[in-house]
Amino acid sequence: MGTRLGELIERFGGQLQGSADIEVEAIAPLDRAGPSDISFLSNSKLRPLAANSHAAALILSPGDEPEVAATYEGARIVTANPYAYFARAAQYFAQWVEAERWPAPEPGIHPAAAVHDSAHVDPTARIGPWVTVEAAAVIKAGAVIDAGCYIGREAVIGEGTHLFANVTFHARCIIGARGIIHSGAVIGGDGFGFAVDSGAYIKIPQTGRVVIGDDVDIGSNTTVDRGALDDTVIEDGVKLDNQIQIGHNCHIGAHTAMAGCVGVAGSARIGKHCTFGGAAMINGHIEIVDNVHVTAATMVPNSITEPGRYTGYFPVARNADWERVAVLVRNLSTMREKVRALEKAVKALTAEK
Amino acid sequence: MGTRLGELIERFGGQLQGSADIEVEAIAPLDRAGPSDISFLSNSKLRPLAANSHAAALILSPGDEPEVAATYEGARIVTANPYAYFARAAQYFAQWVEAERWPAPEPGIHPAAAVHDSAHVDPTARIGPWVTVEAAAVIKAGAVIDAGCYIGREAVIGEGTHLFANVTFHARCIIGARGIIHSGAVIGGDGFGFAVDSGAYIKIPQTGRVVIGDDVDIGSNTTVDRGALDDTVIEDGVKLDNQIQIGHNCHIGAHTAMAGCVGVAGSARIGKHCTFGGAAMINGHIEIVDNVHVTAATMVPNSITEPGRYTGYFPVARNADWERVAVLVRNLSTMREKVRALEKAVKALTAEK
Amino acid sequence: MGTRLGELIERFGGQLQGSADIEVEAIAPLDRAGPSDISFLSNSKLRPLAANSHAAALILSPGDEPEVAATYEGARIVTANPYAYFARAAQYFAQWVEAERWPAPEPGIHPAAAVHDSAHVDPTARIGPWVTVEAAAVIKAGAVIDAGCYIGREAVIGEGTHLFANVTFHARCIIGARGIIHSGAVIGGDGFGFAVDSGAYIKIPQTGRVVIGDDVDIGSNTTVDRGALDDTVIEDGVKLDNQIQIGHNCHIGAHTAMAGCVGVAGSARIGKHCTFGGAAMINGHIEIVDNVHVTAATMVPNSITEPGRYTGYFPVARNADWERVAVLVRNLSTMREKVRALEKAVKALTAEK
Repeated sequence: MGTRLGELIERFGGQLQGSADIEVEAIAPLDRAGPSDISFLSNSKLRPLAANSHAAALILSPGDEPEVAATYEGARIVTANPYAYFARAAQYFAQWVEAERWPAPEPGIHPAAAVHDSAHVDPTARIGPWVTVEAAAVIKAGAVIDAGCYIGREAVIGEGTHLFANVTFHARCIIGARGIIHSGAVIGGDGFGFAVDSGAYIKIPQTGRVVIGDDVDIGSNTTVDRGALDDTVIEDGVKLDNQIQIGHNCHIGAHTAMAGCVGVAGSARIGKHCTFGGAAMINGHIEIVDNVHVTAATMVPNSITEPGRYTGYFPVARNADWERVAVLVRNLSTMREKVRALEKAVKALTAEK
Repeated sequence: MGTRLGELIERFGGQLQGSADIEVEAIAPLDRAGPSDISFLSNSKLRPLAANSHAAALILSPGDEPEVAATYEGARIVTANPYAYFARAAQYFAQWVEAERWPAPEPGIHPAAAVHDSAHVDPTARIGPWVTVEAAAVIKAGAVIDAGCYIGREAVIGEGTHLFANVTFHARCIIGARGIIHSGAVIGGDGFGFAVDSGAYIKIPQTGRVVIGDDVDIGSNTTVDRGALDDTVIEDGVKLDNQIQIGHNCHIGAHTAMAGCVGVAGSARIGKHCTFGGAAMINGHIEIVDNVHVTAATMVPNSITEPGRYTGYFPVARNADWERVAVLVRNLSTMREKVRALEKAVKALTAEK
Repeated sequence: MGTRLGELIERFGGQLQGSADIEVEAIAPLDRAGPSDISFLSNSKLRPLAANSHAAALILSPGDEPEVAATYEGARIVTANPYAYFARAAQYFAQWVEAERWPAPEPGIHPAAAVHDSAHVDPTARIGPWVTVEAAAVIKAGAVIDAGCYIGREAVIGEGTHLFANVTFHARCIIGARGIIHSGAVIGGDGFGFAVDSGAYIKIPQTGRVVIGDDVDIGSNTTVDRGALDDTVIEDGVKLDNQIQIGHNCHIGAHTAMAGCVGVAGSARIGKHCTFGGAAMINGHIEIVDNVHVTAATMVPNSITEPGRYTGYFPVARNADWERVAVLVRNLSTMREKVRALEKAVKALTAEK
């Protein structure tokens, strides 16, 4: 029933201290791991916990190994990045647990799916009930389209990409391989573009697409609008949490991650390896370079041209204190005037001496 | 066609001043209530309006009763909490109006629903068209699952709980009795958890559940993520408005209410009887004690250990004024330096005398 | 295959400088337009680009025409509002491209739609698969209801209005003509209304409707709650972007536009021709007059009684700088005390002279 440590080493690398034949059945946190579990140490502050762990094996770094090994008697997998090793091993165990509990679902198209004759669904793909696949759409090998999803005309779902139930993926949009789109997400709705005429809005048709790379995750109820004339682009490895809004013609660089409730207005261009805390708001038509980290609840009105961490939210306080501070903030001009008057008076007094 | 006041008293309590045989047909606000309506006084400032009301009957508090009764000639239901009484009576009238207009829908499974053989649907539950119920899911007595909902494997929907159209409720998640989940909500999508390896993200499988208590309301398009290893927990009586995001492993205490667009990052632990104004943002891995009230648009980065009201948003102003204030805020260090220099100069002048 | 300029003039007006028989096949931006394209100049700063354009024809204003015509040799359509002209022409070209690529879909009800016998669907309307239309609902001429939508009892969808896939439109709500509702939007979910009794919430039934005028666009995953007793009202020409939340009993005036992630709390009354930047938050029970423009990420706690632009967000800075500023903001009372002390000391020093 268990997995040999040797098999983990073969799959994910690492140096084994101990027997390759030890079997583990699950992955568990340090404080809960028992003799059939493997655990991991990714934070050196927790060394004492690791040293006393009951786990059959530990994943840990070369730097932590000597101290832990002094008292811990189980096997060790030594690797430069124990947290990434844990993530990969946890994926492996999760699939294994799933397979134990449920037979692997059959590939194929559920009889209660509306798939257009001209759509191309790979025979290894799986399409659930109440799914619509419009004309000329392409569902590639191993893709999974769960119940209630809508795939528009000429859309392309890449190899092994998984759309959870009730995703809407509009016409001509593309997602690459190994992606995940969570329930309720809407990809390729119209961007928000209007001309004003005599105070009323005239819709500008949104004829661009959304083009999404490989290994992209999109969270529940997140929305990514299609471009106006050009495309909205999400590069490889981008991770978007839930309830995010990406406006038309945005360009999100590879391996950038955004936490829940972030908003990015149209035509913003965001670099690679950036991170955005929850509810950060990015103005339209600005550029943010690579390796920028924006704190939660921060509004970014202008381009950011230097890497680094940026923050801008009002400090929280007890309501009464905040009210006092808010009045002082509003009246900062008055305080500045007083300081200027004082400077003048003190200068006069000093000169008179 | 009407309801006797006596029947209201039997159902909801209160002391009746007047005849139990008076019949009322609807509930209406003070200023619009007519001779076939019952109205309510929950705000003592509106006593004059109540005193002159045309309603057949009024719900009011013992404190308001004497003054109102001096001129108002209709019946009175006297109760300590007239607003709660109104809410209950309004529920009663709404169900009654509904029943008048439409025959009660039959329980049972719509022929166009995909219910797995191993799922257990109570015969008194009702399942609409285009619904999917996966293997081993349990739909308890009196539950209502409207059109287009998705219920994952081994999920549990409690007694009398109502899922409006197009809700997604993922595998192994649980909701208790008398809950309401509004359209577009997604319960149990994957939490946002990744390890970083060479600048790319490795997904950490999210194997926990969402466990929701009794009497919980969840608003339209709100998302609650499943836990990573442990569960995300929503206790009894919690009320979540629309477009809220609850991260993985959060714990929301009983009878806490959140207004629209609130975001709660992962592993936050929030107490009981708290309230959060719209778009309040709660950092991850923090703790908020019971009876904390956070104002709208406030970012909470750290734990709150004392009950009370907390606020933190920048005061709005005309744009030109805000721009001036924003510059002064940015340059507060300069102002502080000037004040320090002045203090030094004044001290010197004073000493010289 | 192309469109004669004469036909554009007939449809959309404007003064033609050049031959009505010139044919154009597409609309393109100035820098990309070629000899089969028409382009437009809506920003006078781009005059040099226009003057050197390769487009077959240009749409431009009377003010820009003379300078551009000095070197540009193509045809010109002169109109007071080139951007609005572009929008209308682009709509025309987009429909034309669509018609070229795909046969016009047939009107009628997809066999896999659950339409109640008492619903009235105009024969020119189109209803996709997995759609539910409940009793007594009305779908007017030319309306399009895409896959997976839910239309509640007695709801009314106006002439030519288009609901994209997976929209939820609840009972008794109404939308007028030529509207667009994007995927995942939820119209008419219950408002967030509760009475408190002994610390628990009692639901107040939400028996009002959502009443939406003509020419209204509603973005992906936007939510508009039904009224409590009265209706929530969205007037003609309102444009709502994605992920917006409109609370119960709000009233949004005609031709007001809101960018993504805006939140409007219950019973707010917003005027005509207002604009709201992304994630602006509007408090409940307040009033905002016509022609108010609120900047992104701004919280509006109180009524706004004068037109103009209003702003209120904390200026972003490098994190270390922000931390210093945040401390100074928190301690503004101390700084004010120091300034007061200095004023007193300087006054004393001055008096002593």
